[in-house]
Amino acid sequence: MSAGRLYGIGLGPGDPELLTVKAARLIKSVPVIAFFAKAGRRGNARAIVDEWIPATAQEMPLYYPVTTEIPVSDPAYNESLARFYEDSAQNIAAELLAGRDVAILSEGDPLFYGSFMHLYIRLKDRFAVTIVPGVTGMAGCWSAAGEAMTWGDDILTVLPGTLPLEALQARLASTDAAAIMKVGSHFAKIRTALRASGHYERAIYVERGTMAGEKVMLLKDKLDDVAPYFAIILVSGQGRRP
Amino acid sequence: MSAGRLYGIGLGPGDPELLTVKAARLIKSVPVIAFFAKAGRRGNARAIVDEWIPATAQEMPLYYPVTTEIPVSDPAYNESLARFYEDSAQNIAAELLAGRDVAILSEGDPLFYGSFMHLYIRLKDRFAVTIVPGVTGMAGCWSAAGEAMTWGDDILTVLPGTLPLEALQARLASTDAAAIMKVGSHFAKIRTALRASGHYERAIYVERGTMAGEKVMLLKDKLDDVAPYFAIILVSGQGRRP
Repeated sequence: MSAGRLYGIGLGPGDPELLTVKAARLIKSVPVIAFFAKAGRRGNARAIVDEWIPATAQEMPLYYPVTTEIPVSDPAYNESLARFYEDSAQNIAAELLAGRDVAILSEGDPLFYGSFMHLYIRLKDRFAVTIVPGVTGMAGCWSAAGEAMTWGDDILTVLPGTLPLEALQARLASTDAAAIMKVGSHFAKIRTALRASGHYERAIYVERGTMAGEKVMLLKDKLDDVAPYFAIILVSGQGRRP
Repeated sequence: MSAGRLYGIGLGPGDPELLTVKAARLIKSVPVIAFFAKAGRRGNARAIVDEWIPATAQEMPLYYPVTTEIPVSDPAYNESLARFYEDSAQNIAAELLAGRDVAILSEGDPLFYGSFMHLYIRLKDRFAVTIVPGVTGMAGCWSAAGEAMTWGDDILTVLPGTLPLEALQARLASTDAAAIMKVGSHFAKIRTALRASGHYERAIYVERGTMAGEKVMLLKDKLDDVAPYFAIILVSGQGRRP
């Protein structure tokens, strides 16, 4: 018996119709569907594929052991996650060794800040893998905002909001366009960095881009600093426009 | 009679199955389908949708007036393109005013270095617009390469290969991950910048990602400096990996 194939499947930014045709086809046909979720939750990835996944699919939820209970800087955080990814990879390997194909769902694109990558590096040398790229969350957000992001020779910098103020500020000052991810609790710091780099007036705030409850506004019109982790702030480039 | 709606439709990186479900649905149903092409050619955008576009669609090819005949720095280049975009926008506006919806096809994502944007800024204040985001060419390339691009707090910088050597080098030196677009005739300069910034050994060269004739190799294994305009060079980040 030959081993199954592993699929890393990008789900796009949230609207179920923004799956690729290839992703939808595979989710309908791959027998084992694995996805990450917070313990006790169904999770956003599983929700996105609700209309595509058949009742016959063998679902394999992978529940994160920690999210915000332990600080990221604590070695226990890293150890706990490493053990979780190792166990998850072993469970998936068991299915693959039994000859069943396994699809791992990944919000956005699988190889762009995706948890999928932690399983991928543990499995890719042992099994055949197909990656199905997806529309990134940031592309969903800039299309929701109708904001033309990069023109001509513009440079785009993708910045995690988790970076220190000085790093954010320096990178924003030397780019034409920017997408700041993982806003969440870093909002006030990001505002400061945008003000210092001269991008504040044009910056756009997007929450739940392409999904129910979508919010798009100029950052300067958002009066509080309350944002979900996956909110994104966009600065568009001003390059060549014949 | 009410005016038609303008659609900017991302086609993804080249594989027709990497259209989103939404893009495929709209291409099947919107009566007028506009797309850019070189004069005398059918063009890559039109080729990607070959299996989705119905025979009844009214096709509107938009033929670029210049590509490589006039240097970009010559004011005549800019004037010629501006006139072309203006004429194209007027032709599309005529269809919209006649009550017909128009879809403009866009390789990759419509708002990420897309020619679509030049029509969009000329039409968006007069007509209702829906943007359908797409999988970017760079995401198609890194999935073809199986290269996990950004981890944890990694910074990704998207750099047009057209930038001067010094700018490329400085940006590469201060980023974790990079995607260098528009390689074409800038190959030798890009190699120099990657060597100087310490990223050369790991850099990956991708040509025609997700399409027939796809090529993926370590940059250092590519012995010539011959590359199409749309080839991409990738440097993946090395961030947090529990």
